[in-house]
Amino acid sequence: MNLILFEASEVGPDGTATVAGARAHHIAQVLKASRGQAIRIGLVDGPTGEGEVIAVDTHSVSVKCRWASTPPSIPRIDLLLALPRPKVMQRLWAQLAAIGVGHIIITNAARVERQYFDTHVLDAGSFRPRLIEGLQQARDTRVPQVSVHRQFRALVEDDLDELAPDATRVVADPFANATPGDIQPLTRRMVVAVGPEGGWNQFELDLLRNRGFQGVTFGERTLRSDTACVVILSRMHEVLSGSKMDSRK
Amino acid sequence: MNLILFEASEVGPDGTATVAGARAHHIAQVLKASRGQAIRIGLVDGPTGEGEVIAVDTHSVSVKCRWASTPPSIPRIDLLLALPRPKVMQRLWAQLAAIGVGHIIITNAARVERQYFDTHVLDAGSFRPRLIEGLQQARDTRVPQVSVHRQFRALVEDDLDELAPDATRVVADPFANATPGDIQPLTRRMVVAVGPEGGWNQFELDLLRNRGFQGVTFGERTLRSDTACVVILSRMHEVLSGSKMDSRK
Repeated sequence: MNLILFEASEVGPDGTATVAGARAHHIAQVLKASRGQAIRIGLVDGPTGEGEVIAVDTHSVSVKCRWASTPPSIPRIDLLLALPRPKVMQRLWAQLAAIGVGHIIITNAARVERQYFDTHVLDAGSFRPRLIEGLQQARDTRVPQVSVHRQFRALVEDDLDELAPDATRVVADPFANATPGDIQPLTRRMVVAVGPEGGWNQFELDLLRNRGFQGVTFGERTLRSDTACVVILSRMHEVLSGSKMDSRK
Repeated sequence: MNLILFEASEVGPDGTATVAGARAHHIAQVLKASRGQAIRIGLVDGPTGEGEVIAVDTHSVSVKCRWASTPPSIPRIDLLLALPRPKVMQRLWAQLAAIGVGHIIITNAARVERQYFDTHVLDAGSFRPRLIEGLQQARDTRVPQVSVHRQFRALVEDDLDELAPDATRVVADPFANATPGDIQPLTRRMVVAVGPEGGWNQFELDLLRNRGFQGVTFGERTLRSDTACVVILSRMHEVLSGSKMDSRK
């Protein structure tokens, strides 16, 4: 944890937050913070700030919060992801939040097994703590939005314009000619589509292309979905931050 | 598994390999291969090829192997990695092999906890199956070499020239000015240094710089070691394959 995140409900009207569990353990045992010490803090979906440790008990820690004026900006990339197998998805949540994603748009696809949608990996109660974990790693406060779509075609044809408006559209495709350096973002935001293990089928790829998704290759090695997402998102963040659009912050 | 890897010792003089366990399960249950069917195979540290399934029993599968002429080339990047905590290292092995690393050079550093070296995560019996798993994902056969060094200074000053000869030296450093696109590899190989969570200390960073390591930044977010390695290695592979040195294959 490079930042301790509090939910708004955890902070009292006097600006004091008392936490137990992993965060208390981290403050007391890892940071070895004692009374009076300052630690980096953040408010979920709010500003970062500095916390003064005011009490360390056996199982809880109390912190007086002082917030900076403005929250960090929302990450400029949204991810359209064909649901990977649950074990891989499980590992992915924290990494996505750490790398920075505005909206995680989970979709079905021909090569996604339907029972994946029935696992607890898509329950907010399961994934939200993992997203928070990733934010605490990367010192961010912005919890990615998550939406789940079982109809790929309806998602791409009907919903995507609203879910990820004004975004440059990119689909990771091992057979594409364009490399990441070839992408010229024309908008401030980007939505990146990452297919299932085994890839999108031809219908899906055609539909994405017809809806403005530009193919880009990230090398010839077949990577597990979680590794692929990390590679693709980090590279596209670099492309976006190096583009002319970056000045429009 | 996008490729089934056999150890040389598993292949009989007639070119037949019989396997049980995860690979047999994958061939029989995931690929649903029956007698006569062709599957993608590879020989550990040898060529890839095509295997004809000749028997599928309850717990084992036999495959007749036909090898292509030449093995895949060794990945052109070596990794000098400050040992992360065991749980993270455990997750990293397969991903490193999947992305492609020639030599994984594990080192101590001031911000590495010494007891990490005493865990089973550094036993070949523990990590080799994970490396193989990563190779099977990425359709490679080249098992990364692994060496473990408890003396950072002796490693960098005395051993590195031999461990990673003629390699462009790069160190990931959030405070560097150079971005990945600024790196001009002058050699066919590259060695990339990735520090511990918390970073290299000043002595370590100076020592690396004095020994020719060029700092490069991969963005401002603090990532977990496994995520950082994936980001850094994939990006440096892209830099290497786009460089003039690529023609000297």
